[in-house]
Parts: sequence; C-alpha cells; structure tokens
Amino acid sequence: MTDVVIAGIGQTDVGEHWHISLRELALIAIEAAQVDAGGLQPQSLFVGNMLAPQLSRQAHLGALIADFSGLVGIEAYTVESAGASGGAALRAGYLAVASGQSDVALVVGVEKLTDQVGSPVEAALASSSDSDYEAVQGLTPTAQAAMLMARYLREYAVPREAMAGFPMIAHANGVNNPRAMFRKAISPEAYQRAAIVSDPFNMFDVAPNADGAAAVLLARPELLPASITNPLVRVSGSSLVTDTLALHDRPNPLIFEAARLSVERACRQAGITPAQIDLFELYDAYSIYAALSLEAAGFASPGTGWQLVQNGKLSLTGALPILTLGGLKARGNAGGATGVYQAVEAVLQLRGQAGANQIPGARRALVQCLGGPASSSVTHVLERLDPR
Amino acid sequence: MTDVVIAGIGQTDVGEHWHISLRELALIAIEAAQVDAGGLQPQSLFVGNMLAPQLSRQAHLGALIADFSGLVGIEAYTVESAGASGGAALRAGYLAVASGQSDVALVVGVEKLTDQVGSPVEAALASSSDSDYEAVQGLTPTAQAAMLMARYLREYAVPREAMAGFPMIAHANGVNNPRAMFRKAISPEAYQRAAIVSDPFNMFDVAPNADGAAAVLLARPELLPASITNPLVRVSGSSLVTDTLALHDRPNPLIFEAARLSVERACRQAGITPAQIDLFELYDAYSIYAALSLEAAGFASPGTGWQLVQNGKLSLTGALPILTLGGLKARGNAGGATGVYQAVEAVLQLRGQAGANQIPGARRALVQCLGGPASSSVTHVLERLDPR
Repeated sequence: MTDVVIAGIGQTDVGEHWHISLRELALIAIEAAQVDAGGLQPQSLFVGNMLAPQLSRQAHLGALIADFSGLVGIEAYTVESAGASGGAALRAGYLAVASGQSDVALVVGVEKLTDQVGSPVEAALASSSDSDYEAVQGLTPTAQAAMLMARYLREYAVPREAMAGFPMIAHANGVNNPRAMFRKAISPEAYQRAAIVSDPFNMFDVAPNADGAAAVLLARPELLPASITNPLVRVSGSSLVTDTLALHDRPNPLIFEAARLSVERACRQAGITPAQIDLFELYDAYSIYAALSLEAAGFASPGTGWQLVQNGKLSLTGALPILTLGGLKARGNAGGATGVYQAVEAVLQLRGQAGANQIPGARRALVQCLGGPASSSVTHVLERLDPR
Repeated sequence: MTDVVIAGIGQTDVGEHWHISLRELALIAIEAAQVDAGGLQPQSLFVGNMLAPQLSRQAHLGALIADFSGLVGIEAYTVESAGASGGAALRAGYLAVASGQSDVALVVGVEKLTDQVGSPVEAALASSSDSDYEAVQGLTPTAQAAMLMARYLREYAVPREAMAGFPMIAHANGVNNPRAMFRKAISPEAYQRAAIVSDPFNMFDVAPNADGAAAVLLARPELLPASITNPLVRVSGSSLVTDTLALHDRPNPLIFEAARLSVERACRQAGITPAQIDLFELYDAYSIYAALSLEAAGFASPGTGWQLVQNGKLSLTGALPILTLGGLKARGNAGGATGVYQAVEAVLQLRGQAGANQIPGARRALVQCLGGPASSSVTHVLERLDPR
C-alpha cells in the first residue's frame, strides 16, 4: 500500500457565519489548503457534512462544492456519519489515495448549524440517533449524553465537578487559537455557577453548535513537488469502527467500545502503542465524552478518566496534551467539519506551527471523532515525516 | 492495484413498501447478498442513500444498518451524490478493497420514496439541484428535465414521439424481471395517449419514485473461498466525474459532459472501447436522459441518440441492449439504491442468470448512474471472469 501524507491544510474561523453561505465556507477552507500546498491540484473531493440536506435543503454537496471551487470535473461525493462525518471523509480520502485511484485527494468538512435555532436544529441533530426508538421519544443527543453523565457519576460515585477540568482545558487552550469560537479561559467558580442545560450538564459541559469549514489535501508523497516546504505529515493509521446506533442496545453504555477498537486498529496499523503519542485530539462534544474517550483509548481504566484531568497531565505541558487548540468546546463544534478541524490542528502541532500552544517536539498525534455516543468512531494516527 | 470482484448480489422487490422500514429493506438485500456469496463476511459497509435524513428523519445510516444487519463493529458510512448515490457507494466500496483496507466490502443502496407523496418528496428531490439558484425558483428535477427535452426537440427538430422507444424498451424488458415495479409492456398508442406530466413529458417519460434496496459484496478474488460457485464479475473500470451543479452554468446543456468523461475514464481503465460492451445499463430517470447518455457515451452523435431506439439496436437481441431488466422506468427508481440495482442486474447478465432476458454470452457491461442532469456521473465496467 502506498504512503499517504497530508500536504496542505486550511480552515475558516469557527463561529456564527450568518453572512457566509455553505459553499463559500467550503471554498475559503479549500483555497487556503491549496495555497498551503503550493497550488496542488486534487483529482477527488470528499465532503464531510451532517445536516445540510435538513437545515439548508442542499444535498449533492460533492458536485456543488467541486463546481464552486473551480474544480468542475473531479470526482466528488458527500460522506455522512453523524458527528464523525469529517473523520469519515478523511478516511474516504485516505482510501482514494491508498487505492492508487487519486494521486491527490481533497477532504473538506463543512457545516452551518447556526442559521436556525431551537427545534429544527435539535430535530436534525436527533436524526443521528435511532429515529424509530430514540428520537421518536423526544430524546436529543444532549439529553442522551446528560443521562450518560448521570449514570457515570452514580456508578462510579464521582462528584459532578469531576468533569470541570475538560472544558477548563479546552477554554484555556482556545485562548491562543485565532480560529476558535471562544477565546476566554473559565475558572472553577464559573463552572460551578453555570446554568444547568440538561441535568447534570451545565452550559460548559456541552460544546457549542457552530459554522465552519476545514480542508486537508492528501497525496502520495513521491509525487509531490519540491515547492512544498512545510513538513509532511503521514497518515500512519486510519480506522473507522461502528457500535450499536441506539445506546440502550449496549451491554454497558459507559464503555465506548467502537472508540476502543478504532484506537487499537489505527495504532496497530501505525506500529505504535497509544502511549507513544504526543497529543490526543479527542471528541469533547460533551465533557463526559472526553472522560469516556480517554478510558476507551486505554489511558485510564473505566470510571477514572476524569482523574487524569485533575493533575495537569492533559494540559499543554503535561504528558498527554488534549484539545490543544480548544477542542470542540472552545474552538466550536461545526458538525461534519469537526473531524477535519481536528486533523488540521494536529498537523499544525506536528509541523511546529501551533504558536503559543505548540507542544515541543510533537511527532505523533492521535485524532478521533465520534458519531453519536461513539456509534461511529474514526481514529487516525498522524506522524511528522523527516524533511525530504 | 489489487483486482476487485463482485462476489455476491442481493435485492428486494422494487415498489411501494409501506410496511417495510428502511433498515429492514437494507437487511433483506444484505442477507441475500451474503447468502449468494456463501456467507462471506465484510469488513466495511458503504450505504448509498439520497433522502432518508429529509424524508425519514434518519441520518447515520452506516451505523444503523451495520447494527441492524448483525454487523456491529465494521466500518460504515453513508455516501451521497443525489441520484448517483448508489453508484458512488459502489465506487467507495471499490476504493476500500482496492486500497487493501478491506478484504471484503459490502455496498448497499437503500431508499424509501413512497411513504410520503407530493410536495415533501418534490422538495427533498429538489435539494439535489442548486438550492440557492434553481430549487429556490420552484424548479423540480422533473420540470428541469422536461425543459431539457423541450430544448432537445426544438434544437434538433425532433418530434415528441422520438423518445417513446425508451420507455417501451424498459417496459418490455421489465415484464420478465420479478423484482420490477411495473411488469407490463406499453404500446406506441399508449405512449401517445398518456397524460402530460410536465410538458413535453408524459407519464411514460418519467421513471416512478420507488422503495427498495440492493446490495453487492466486493472482494479481492484471491481471498475468496472455493465455496463461491457463481462466476465472478470483475470491476474493470470505475470512474466518478462531476459537472456544474446548475444546468444554466453549462456552455451546452444538451451535452452530458460528466457522463462522457466518466465513460472514457472507466473504459480506459478497463482497457476497452465502449464498442466492446455487451450491454449498457444507463440511467433513464427521464427518457431524454437515455438519449443524452447514449450520445455522451459515444454511441450516437449529438441529436441522434433517439434514432438508435427506432431500429431495434437497443433491444435484447440488438447490438447494444439497454435497460435489460427494465431500467429505472419499469424496475422503478429507488433513489440511492438505483446505482446498486443497476450493478446487480448487470451481474445477473454476466453470470448468465438473467432468465428470459439473458443476453447470450454477455461478457462486459457498462453501468452508469447520474446525479441531477449528470452533475455527477458514475460509470463502471463490469466483466465476467473465466471460472477459477
């Protein structure tokens, strides 16, 4: 199998982009990635998107975005896997290059979640859960995750404040990310005081819905022109694993089995153990997800993921930095774009371009995004290559 | 690059399945494909679907269908490319096997279009066109295709009855397909008398919306057990090409440029010319599309595609059989399932299992499906392998 590297990255600011259309957001990220890669031309385009058909009445984004980006004629289609759509699109682009069918593949994640508020968005987001057994009962993803946290707190006898460290790390790291939606640190007191959103979640336990687009260019390294001077980042491991869609179908809802398996498979392909990574961009759509993801990846035993955040291990100067540019909580959760944002941020770290938040000498990153409560889990191992 | 073969096929009846849910339809097709392939187990699942998020409020079909089919844990995601979704999912499965990441990949196309009627369905179908410039004006895909036919008739000075042959061939061939929605031949007089749907289209110019699911199992041939006794069919060529999403952005709307390019590329990969194929499963969502697709593939010059249907060349005993088991018009158009139905039907022909409609000695098939007015075009060359 051929090597696949990330040769270009681009991203828009994350936030409320009422004045920029879906196609324009995608174009901004794509143009940035192409400039970053010295004008590299892709043969294929994989669009990660969750909800444009429901919220913007626009399907067929592959042809739309190829067209609007001046790439008419290339292969293009949409990849959807709920919150994991961006990661799944990255995986699709990886398959296109690894198969030899594309020398250069473009992956763009794009989403607009803030043009509408309230029920239409909640109903659309709920379409990622089981519509016949979960959504039909009025269950929203946030309410479901809140129940998961309630169960975690009760089962492991943990205080509600146990999760406070996750949004605090995200917000602390988001301060230095010019793309982030929220660039303000939060204190333990602010977390304590925050309004309850869905008991036991307060507003800091839930990442904000956002608009944004991020793009990466994947390529076979031997075909790249010497004009590309940024360090190349190899996709050393790539895995997508599913679990039951409905949470009630699992033997133990507090185990993110698909997350565990996808980390295991991606690391096996990369020839490393999770302990060998320098940072972990995990999927903190809800603070409880961060704890469960750390446990699934094997960094903590079940019920103890929250303890890692108490002693500084997960901060930028710790042994296992997470959410290094703000994560979903502070950067913002732009649906199907999120998985691509995570990859872009990991590449910044591995290139040494992460600014004030740079992890010194970062060489390997684990990047993971989830659809639903890890009903889909996509994990990639990214690794800096030595200069050519 | 490794060879990729189709080792198993399955399909449900096409029609109005009000009593069978989306997930159940998918399961029926998947189980049939697995039985057909001697119980072969896939590592990945690619779901072709257009409109479940809009019409059934169900996204995240990868995890849903993997789960419901007893395949929890495998890689899975949805591939969307409007009417070409099924073909794009086949392409995604092909990339997964060709890349070496899956030894066996399962592709299922599934769609339910008949649970609702009228505006919700028309609005959802219109989301495949440009929502900001086309759909917003009230343009539906059928109205757009009707305008395309009007222009064709005027520009090439062709009578409206020129297109009658396409639905007549489809319906004649559908009679012997036990899966087809309509199994009744139509006469020239019936076509003449038929009610106008969208001038100049009458009801026989438009394929019916339908429900259904079809599945194929793709595999690396060297890994298949000897228990698989059906002839293997190789995917010799695979190409997905886009064009402008909006019809008004094209220099000549009567040229399906993406269809032309994708035939050229798929045939080049297969090492054949289009003249070497034994049947052509083309995308007759509208009768005018059949004429334009024949022209795009090079079987007729612009403005003359309709003449091919006048002299018997396209019937089962002609030199270029099309729509051999009924096409979209008689089998029914089950949205994102259509591209997979086309592949299943081509495999039946290449295996010699097409019953009364068998093309004697069929060895190579061209299979093409379109999203919008060929805004996306997916073409595959399928080829029977000699017995192992």
